[in-house]
Formats: sequence, structure tokens, C-alpha cells
Amino acid sequence: MTRRTGRRPGNPGTRESILDAARAAFAERGFDAASIRAIAGTAGVDPALVHHYFGSKDQLFLAAMNLPVDPGQLVPRVLAGDRDGVGERMVRVFLGVWDSPAGSAGVALLRSAVSNEWTARLLREFITTQVLRRVLEQLDVEPAQLPLRGSLVATQMIGLAMMRHVVRLEPVASADPETLVAAIGPTVQRYLTGSLAS
Amino acid sequence: MTRRTGRRPGNPGTRESILDAARAAFAERGFDAASIRAIAGTAGVDPALVHHYFGSKDQLFLAAMNLPVDPGQLVPRVLAGDRDGVGERMVRVFLGVWDSPAGSAGVALLRSAVSNEWTARLLREFITTQVLRRVLEQLDVEPAQLPLRGSLVATQMIGLAMMRHVVRLEPVASADPETLVAAIGPTVQRYLTGSLAS
Repeated sequence: MTRRTGRRPGNPGTRESILDAARAAFAERGFDAASIRAIAGTAGVDPALVHHYFGSKDQLFLAAMNLPVDPGQLVPRVLAGDRDGVGERMVRVFLGVWDSPAGSAGVALLRSAVSNEWTARLLREFITTQVLRRVLEQLDVEPAQLPLRGSLVATQMIGLAMMRHVVRLEPVASADPETLVAAIGPTVQRYLTGSLAS
Repeated sequence: MTRRTGRRPGNPGTRESILDAARAAFAERGFDAASIRAIAGTAGVDPALVHHYFGSKDQLFLAAMNLPVDPGQLVPRVLAGDRDGVGERMVRVFLGVWDSPAGSAGVALLRSAVSNEWTARLLREFITTQVLRRVLEQLDVEPAQLPLRGSLVATQMIGLAMMRHVVRLEPVASADPETLVAAIGPTVQRYLTGSLAS
């Protein structure tokens, strides 16, 4: 459905040049500070060509990380329902993605992030800006607590992905998703909306 | 303090041969089924030499995994106190190890486990037999639930180590240990002794 814009489409390597520039910018400056204009400048192309190829900055970020899943489409499923069920819904949606063919991209991302500082930075930006911020913004919690709550959720979710899909520790590796939703949902719920003091 | 036993000490590479054979045996057969006798056989040495070099099977396992910390000495600190505090004590002892110089061995182990299936197997055996089983055996919980409880604890603890020490997501990466003990202790407590159904 892409329409000819009349612009030069760039050399065959243009798309890769843009993705390389995007990865560098997102890792070095972070998602919020990286601009399409600067990424286009590094790649030596017109900013309009970046939009033409990739759409929004969010979509460019997902393409730069090789992720086949768009959290922008998943977060509404996490938020759809009562506030007390957001923890269970987050675990359910998360497992749905990781148990699907898209999960292999997640495993590849985790593998890369533990050995490569740049990928670790991209993973941090992804977790924070694409997932946690979008959920936490909707939950009406004390703003000063958002970063700690978000990173606690990340410890539980990334640990779940690690044990189920990378280290494959049983019975978590083969457990029925709803068993894990029931067991882990309350943890995520407390990290999102509950008391964090003992 | 090692005493001459009168046995031949083996060739210079004997110690490494034993460790190679031990890694293979623990990864292929698991900790429980691997025997010192079989490991010695693979390495071409007398079983007594394995005991002479490494002591017990537990100690051989720690040496094979290059771990500078012996969970056998840490688990009593987790168990020392009331049952309702075991979750907080486990997080506190865990953070104490990971925040110490020994933490770099943990990071190296995680890095290796995500890219190497053998190391992942050794990590599974380590988590299960050296840490979780020793704690859970003392807590008087339904035996049928022990594997699920143990692997849920592993999701939270490994996720904590990943986010604090590998991916370094803030504020978990720099948080005061007691902040994390207060926030994550109740999670571990529930996985160990609480209800896992929603």
C-alpha cells in the first residue's frame, strides 16, 4: 500500500543505514531525546524518507529492535478492565506474546542484551517507554513512585521470560499460562498499585 | 591444610580434566544422578583423587561452575528466624552476594546460561539442588507444590539479578538493598509459603 511520493527512494542500503542510525541514537540518547531529524542526518537521508519507510518514532524503534510485536497494540488489552485485574492481564498478555512465534525474537533480544551493552540500553528504553510508562500512566499512582514500580514489574516479567523460555526451569517452563497468571498476577498487581513498604 | 595422601597427584591437567568431566556429568545427568565415581572414570582418575581435590559432590559442583559462593553457608542465614520473614531474608542474602565482588561471577554465569545450553542446564541444577530445595525442605509446605514454588522464586530472583546487574534498569539498578527487600520480600514469601491461586 506504499505510494510513490516522488522522492528518491535512496540507495539499496538506505533502509539499513536508517536502522543503524536509529539503533545508535536510541541507545546513546534514549528514546525520548532521539529525533527522527537527527537519525535521518546520521543516515544521510531526508527525514521524510524515514517517515516514509517506518512511520512514527515508535514504529522506527520497533523496527530497529527487530521486534515483531507492537506494545502499542497490546497495552490497551492490559488496561481493558478493572484496576485490580491489571496485574493478571499483564501476565496473560505477556505470556501470550512469549508463547507465540514472536517469542523467539524476545529470546534473541534477551540473549543479545546480556552480552551487548548497546542492546541492553535499547532493551531498557523499550521496557520503559514502550511498555511500562504506557501502563503506569493510566493507573493513577503517585508519580514519584512510577520508576520504582515500573522497574519492579520488569524484574518479575523478565525473570519469568528468562526461566520459561531461556533457562527453561521446570515446572515454570511448561506450566499452563493460567497457572502462572494466577501465581504471578498478584505480584505484578502489587508492584503496580499496592504497598511497596514492608 | 591439604595433607599428602601418598596417592599419585595426577598430571598437571588432572584438576581441569576432573572439572570438565564434572560439568559434562552434571549437565547431562543432573546433580543427583551424577556420581563422583563416574566423573572420576571419565577423567581417568581414582575417585579418591576427586575427593582429595574437591571434597564433597556439592563442593565439586561449585568448583565446576566457578562459583565463589557456597549456598550451603548462606541458606542457614535465610532460614534463621521466623517463617514469615524467610522471603525478606532470602532477598537480603541474595542481594548481599550479588552486590559483593562475587556478583561478577553471577553475571558471567547468567551471560553464559543465556547463550549456552549446557550452562543453562548447570544453572537449573544449581538453582534447584543447591538453593531452592534446601530452603523449601525446611518450610513445611505441600510437597507436590515444591517444584512450582521453587521455580516461581527463581523467576523473581533471577529477574532481580538481571535488571539490577546485567540490564541495569533504574531505579532497581541503584536502589538501596533494603528498599528492594521491602518491595520484593513479600513476593518471595508468597511464592514460598502463601496461596498461589487467584
